[in-house]
Amino acid sequence: MKNRQWILVKRPKGHMGDDLLEWRTVEVPPLGEGECLVKNLQLSLDPTQRIWMTDIPQYLPPVALGDVMRGGTIGRVVASEGGSYAVGDYVQGFGQWQDYWIAKQGEGSRFRPQPGAPLSIYFGLLGATGFTAYFGMLEIGKPRACDTVVVSAAAGAVGSVAGQIAKIAGARVIGIAGGAEKCEWITKDLGFDAAIDYKSEPVAKRLKELAPKGVDVYFDNTGGEILDAVLLNLALGARIPLCGLISGYDSGEPARGPKYYANILMQRATVQGFIVLDYAPRFAEAAPKLAAWHAEGKLKYRVDVEHGLENAPRALKKLFDGSNRGKLIVEIAQDA
Amino acid sequence: MKNRQWILVKRPKGHMGDDLLEWRTVEVPPLGEGECLVKNLQLSLDPTQRIWMTDIPQYLPPVALGDVMRGGTIGRVVASEGGSYAVGDYVQGFGQWQDYWIAKQGEGSRFRPQPGAPLSIYFGLLGATGFTAYFGMLEIGKPRACDTVVVSAAAGAVGSVAGQIAKIAGARVIGIAGGAEKCEWITKDLGFDAAIDYKSEPVAKRLKELAPKGVDVYFDNTGGEILDAVLLNLALGARIPLCGLISGYDSGEPARGPKYYANILMQRATVQGFIVLDYAPRFAEAAPKLAAWHAEGKLKYRVDVEHGLENAPRALKKLFDGSNRGKLIVEIAQDA
Repeated sequence: MKNRQWILVKRPKGHMGDDLLEWRTVEVPPLGEGECLVKNLQLSLDPTQRIWMTDIPQYLPPVALGDVMRGGTIGRVVASEGGSYAVGDYVQGFGQWQDYWIAKQGEGSRFRPQPGAPLSIYFGLLGATGFTAYFGMLEIGKPRACDTVVVSAAAGAVGSVAGQIAKIAGARVIGIAGGAEKCEWITKDLGFDAAIDYKSEPVAKRLKELAPKGVDVYFDNTGGEILDAVLLNLALGARIPLCGLISGYDSGEPARGPKYYANILMQRATVQGFIVLDYAPRFAEAAPKLAAWHAEGKLKYRVDVEHGLENAPRALKKLFDGSNRGKLIVEIAQDA
Repeated sequence: MKNRQWILVKRPKGHMGDDLLEWRTVEVPPLGEGECLVKNLQLSLDPTQRIWMTDIPQYLPPVALGDVMRGGTIGRVVASEGGSYAVGDYVQGFGQWQDYWIAKQGEGSRFRPQPGAPLSIYFGLLGATGFTAYFGMLEIGKPRACDTVVVSAAAGAVGSVAGQIAKIAGARVIGIAGGAEKCEWITKDLGFDAAIDYKSEPVAKRLKELAPKGVDVYFDNTGGEILDAVLLNLALGARIPLCGLISGYDSGEPARGPKYYANILMQRATVQGFIVLDYAPRFAEAAPKLAAWHAEGKLKYRVDVEHGLENAPRALKKLFDGSNRGKLIVEIAQDA
């Protein structure tokens, strides 16, 4: 049985080149006691994978050069040697950028897809993406009905959900996104109160107009210049869930620190970094709420599907040039 | 009756020049109904006054050009026209850089000095300085007995108290200060566990040695390069009470943002800006605790007294060249 894999062979510096990952085909080794063989069906592509490729200080060990590239997957068990799962089970985990994953005891988690629900929802709304938005917005952002909430990368997988959760909490929500199509999607389809197109509008000036009393919650996916524009418009006691710094990922340098960092002091703001894995013990609490909001039509999402494992490196770049639309996944194989 | 005053006539750019404040002598006007005349005895000099001189966005209105320079004072009431205080009362408030202050109804607050206690303690340990350290460390830093706490400007008025409060909470405390004398003072006299002399030692490297498990609490008075050195050594879930950014005050630019801002995300740290005035309703809760710790010998402080209102501008510069030792005050007049 053949296993096609993407191997990390070089760490990115600046824009991601085409020589970071190498395509390799190996034999699937025999299973050891307690192991399951999982056929990967879908691979999640996330901005954080750009971090895992580097060896800067980070929240998980960097992917070692020569190892299969790390990625979240959804798959089905095709063989088991007394492993945690039965043949046919759906398993989510770090199945990596490959066709087959050998899940050891304790690795991954089983789930039962809802009838009719696409598998991709377990990456999106009911997976790490949705949980990131849920805990970041509600636990750190704590939006109140009287608040003005700003979300960057607002048409992205996490940002679009985070903004809608703030709407559900009753807040006024302004999304910052790149391009007219994205801005229209978040206002017309998702119900954001306003959008700022950072590619064509001066963000700080527009924020001053749209949020004259200041920004109470800023869900930050980007860092960089957008963060600076928001820091110039903070309300007293603002909360800033720090979810990502994507503006700095695709460069060889550490993300530039905010120029207006001092406004965190002046406005007595709170910046709190978080990683969705920290909330793993509470995923089960978030999932039914997200599912219910989705069923009620309050929470929409879209999925951007690329086909074929061989296209994963090219697809990953879409996250950094702004061309993806919603949760980006690669379909490795169809669910039989 | 003559009133000598320092008038702000120019906003600082870069290093504070000698032409920012102008010396003026005016007549004290007659009191209006409800006003008290307070003879200022002591003037507090604080790094934040450098901010008030500028017109960057800040937490109080900037001092207007042509106005008396703002400053906290301790004084005694010498006349009252039905005002809030009686002649002879001790009053603390924004009495400004001048000999006499006309306190309107509701301005300032009366206090009774403890017998034997120097007036300066009401600026220092039992004033804004002590309260800043108390609330910043305990409410935001939340040091636990197992924590490693780092304080910058650790021999300064606030830092020295903040570090001692973390010691009282049972934490291991490392102070960062400039020069051997300051480092010796905080370790030998104040009981800090270790000191790093940022003028002669590589801070990031020394932190890695002294705090191999990372920094749980960083009480930040300075920002700049010292903040970056700490960000490289954060423990998971670190708390960073952001008290001041003095490294950037004495320059014409906004304080440089931290280069390793991304580590706030990676280590899921929290940065929270605070201003002592926010805690005014709770000062009465802090004062007896600080006084008790002082009486028990657990909390020491030192005062750096300059004599004569005419010397205030020169004295203020000591806060930015690192030459002050402890809480800096100007004695305007002796308590009769």
